[in-house]
Amino acid sequence: MAAKPTQDDAFVTEITKQSVDFSRWYLDVVRKAELADYSPVKGFMVIRPYGYAIWELIQQQLDQRIKASGHVNAYFPLLIPESLLKKEAEHVEGFAPQVAYVTHGGGEELEEKLVVRPTSEAIIGVMYAKWIQSWRDLPVLINQWANVVRWEKVTRPFLRTTEFLWQEGHTAHETADEAQEETMKILALYKDVCENVLAVPVMDGRKSDSEKFAGASRTYSIEALMGDGRALQAGTSHNLGQNFAKAFEIQFQGRDKTVQHVWTTSWGVTTRLIGAVIMTHGDDSGLILPPAIAPWQVVIVPIPRGTWKETVLPKCEEIRDQLKAAGIRVKLDADESQTPGWKFSEYEMRGVPLRLEIGPKDIEKSSVFAARRDTRAKASIPMDGLADAVKGLLAEIQAGLLERARKFRDEHTFSADSYDEFKATMAGRPGFVIAPWCEDAACEAEIKAETQATIRNIPEGYGEAPGKPCIKCGKPAQVSAWFAKAY
Amino acid sequence: MAAKPTQDDAFVTEITKQSVDFSRWYLDVVRKAELADYSPVKGFMVIRPYGYAIWELIQQQLDQRIKASGHVNAYFPLLIPESLLKKEAEHVEGFAPQVAYVTHGGGEELEEKLVVRPTSEAIIGVMYAKWIQSWRDLPVLINQWANVVRWEKVTRPFLRTTEFLWQEGHTAHETADEAQEETMKILALYKDVCENVLAVPVMDGRKSDSEKFAGASRTYSIEALMGDGRALQAGTSHNLGQNFAKAFEIQFQGRDKTVQHVWTTSWGVTTRLIGAVIMTHGDDSGLILPPAIAPWQVVIVPIPRGTWKETVLPKCEEIRDQLKAAGIRVKLDADESQTPGWKFSEYEMRGVPLRLEIGPKDIEKSSVFAARRDTRAKASIPMDGLADAVKGLLAEIQAGLLERARKFRDEHTFSADSYDEFKATMAGRPGFVIAPWCEDAACEAEIKAETQATIRNIPEGYGEAPGKPCIKCGKPAQVSAWFAKAY
Repeated sequence: MAAKPTQDDAFVTEITKQSVDFSRWYLDVVRKAELADYSPVKGFMVIRPYGYAIWELIQQQLDQRIKASGHVNAYFPLLIPESLLKKEAEHVEGFAPQVAYVTHGGGEELEEKLVVRPTSEAIIGVMYAKWIQSWRDLPVLINQWANVVRWEKVTRPFLRTTEFLWQEGHTAHETADEAQEETMKILALYKDVCENVLAVPVMDGRKSDSEKFAGASRTYSIEALMGDGRALQAGTSHNLGQNFAKAFEIQFQGRDKTVQHVWTTSWGVTTRLIGAVIMTHGDDSGLILPPAIAPWQVVIVPIPRGTWKETVLPKCEEIRDQLKAAGIRVKLDADESQTPGWKFSEYEMRGVPLRLEIGPKDIEKSSVFAARRDTRAKASIPMDGLADAVKGLLAEIQAGLLERARKFRDEHTFSADSYDEFKATMAGRPGFVIAPWCEDAACEAEIKAETQATIRNIPEGYGEAPGKPCIKCGKPAQVSAWFAKAY
Repeated sequence: MAAKPTQDDAFVTEITKQSVDFSRWYLDVVRKAELADYSPVKGFMVIRPYGYAIWELIQQQLDQRIKASGHVNAYFPLLIPESLLKKEAEHVEGFAPQVAYVTHGGGEELEEKLVVRPTSEAIIGVMYAKWIQSWRDLPVLINQWANVVRWEKVTRPFLRTTEFLWQEGHTAHETADEAQEETMKILALYKDVCENVLAVPVMDGRKSDSEKFAGASRTYSIEALMGDGRALQAGTSHNLGQNFAKAFEIQFQGRDKTVQHVWTTSWGVTTRLIGAVIMTHGDDSGLILPPAIAPWQVVIVPIPRGTWKETVLPKCEEIRDQLKAAGIRVKLDADESQTPGWKFSEYEMRGVPLRLEIGPKDIEKSSVFAARRDTRAKASIPMDGLADAVKGLLAEIQAGLLERARKFRDEHTFSADSYDEFKATMAGRPGFVIAPWCEDAACEAEIKAETQATIRNIPEGYGEAPGKPCIKCGKPAQVSAWFAKAY
């Protein structure tokens, strides 16, 4: 669309400073960078073209990896009969408070209420029961790109909205081991995308029982740390055991001719990832996008001096075409109604990784002036071999953002061996605090009530009994858990 | 997913012959080729991986062209307040009987009922009113990939389902001319995709007033002819005039400083296109897919004789990798539990354009045995330069399918100058009958009641007054209209 700024978008200085109010800063960036907008339906957002372009790039990277690991895409119905949702007891208990009901269709009241899918285990379970008969039919490895609806009281663009977009994988396996292997494989895939595409470092581990997906045997998550010291769950992978297989009678004849229930998994990441990117990399000037998901990796701003239209502009077009041919996503902004200074702020605010300024003097020197968004480093680059130089810079920016975020995360990760130490460390929004825990849900609940901190997950490496007492009850700890205040 | 056939899928001879019952043939193909399945919710289908892979290929081709013509993607809410739908009078009248209502969310009855989007003009209209202020903001060229729900009494997989997937473009322009230009540009884009990707020839033209989109000034469609002689509307492009702009107060300050309403368009194609492909190209053996949208363009079937595993299989793998490297979508089926004969039928039924058989003798001759799905022509091809030969064959198949379908369509297109001639020609399912029409809706309705034929559209080339009397009332005809019995 025409992304021309309207009057009230013109002043990027209107973005609240992170240090003043991180939450307002976030909303300002979402609005000013035209990532999303509020809709007339409470809790529902509109994803604007610039935000959706980021989502498409994330989708491509995820979809490639999901397919490369043997999965295929399919599409299941949006509406689910209420009776199906009720088949798995924990599942319905977890989701019932959040569902939207369709009660009328085609001018008539429906015989049975339909639920707008909050997730698709139920409807997919019914189909798998129909499709799977023999061990030869296994594994079934299906993914779906879809919208889901979960009624939320408090919403925030990308982070928590009543409707959101996601991918949901649903797999069925012959053995418990294979299901567990799949669960962990996907967790690693998600970690790969977060770190190597979004440049968002994540800690992967198992959720505590109280934070499990409704109906899962084990839930694993990846957890990122936002710029304000709060954690964000960025993706989950569930080993559903035989819970859904039993509820939906998904059975197969095994190699030994006995009839058995399959073992299933499910896993998903959502448009929330865009929120993670904003809050991991952004600064007071706005968005900072990792090149891998930047709709425009490079913006070219001509400096309009003298006979620039005859000299500078054609060169800018030539360079744009060169970069495009090299597979770089590039925008040339030759709009005369805005000054270069306005454009600098605008594209900084929109997080474009690299700006190339080209004026008459640059042309004389046969170079361009490059400004990095992440470090604000500036340098003159020869036009000769520019595409390679730009690719190199983009790769540096991508790696630099991950490194910077990892450093921030590590500097905001603490450990505590006593409850006093824990409470002192957890004051404010320090980041992660690793602490020994007995695995008793009562201790977890008390810690949450008293400190607002929740167990984000229990990383595998830290999963062994730490040989220390639980910070809350003093009994022997079973695990080292990562605590944080979270979104 | 594991697409291994289960017992009841094993016999492709179970497909009803087209000549016996075209409608049952269609359903058999959809089920046997695992394109779609019925779901537990009446009228909702599951798009299975093989069907969805076709949709993804269609999507890619459409999306590329939509973006190349200056449009960007975005995402708008699934649920629309009922009051918004009611703002455009004709729009609500057209869609009200078909909508599904969400009345409860989060455990509470909603203050205002929400409609599951049947199309998104209303919700997008509200946003455009917010985003557009000046002529500088125009045009707005946005597309959305989404699911929509329209309650249907009689459904058929892909052709008419209560929920379907589509893209819907929504644009806003400064002038009436620009909106009309956009409407026609998209119609041409749709025609290009249908003919050059799906190999489905279409007739493009204007809909009669009674067949217009609810709220449109003018609706244009592309119409295809199915193998049973019935027409199928394959896509529509609407010039909405200022109807929605006025209903939603989408205004801008013009170049002359006056406040004006924008001119809007909307346009869409759906998963119905998959139905068009099935019914245009399929035969008694099942599906025939044009290479451009075939999930597997080539299947390699090794002939398991003697020491095939040491000789034939490695060669098959080598050829698979060669073809893959050349950008060809190829599947090697080395499954020992099925015979080559079974595989031949299976991949024919699934419409794979080209089969390569490779046995010990082919290896000796350093050639492969190729069988085309479309013409069933068979030939030996040297392994040397195989990828290029395969590419050539696929291009031939793609072109051949379009040519064959165009020939069929032309042979099933007739004209009639009197009502008696029209009725005689329209008996059974002859295809299209072109006839002079006065543009009076009463004549159109009577013709439909008496012959079941509807006006599919009025092609531009045939749009001038034919200088003949209307076949129904005898008054001077305004246009030559294309009539057919339609899906």
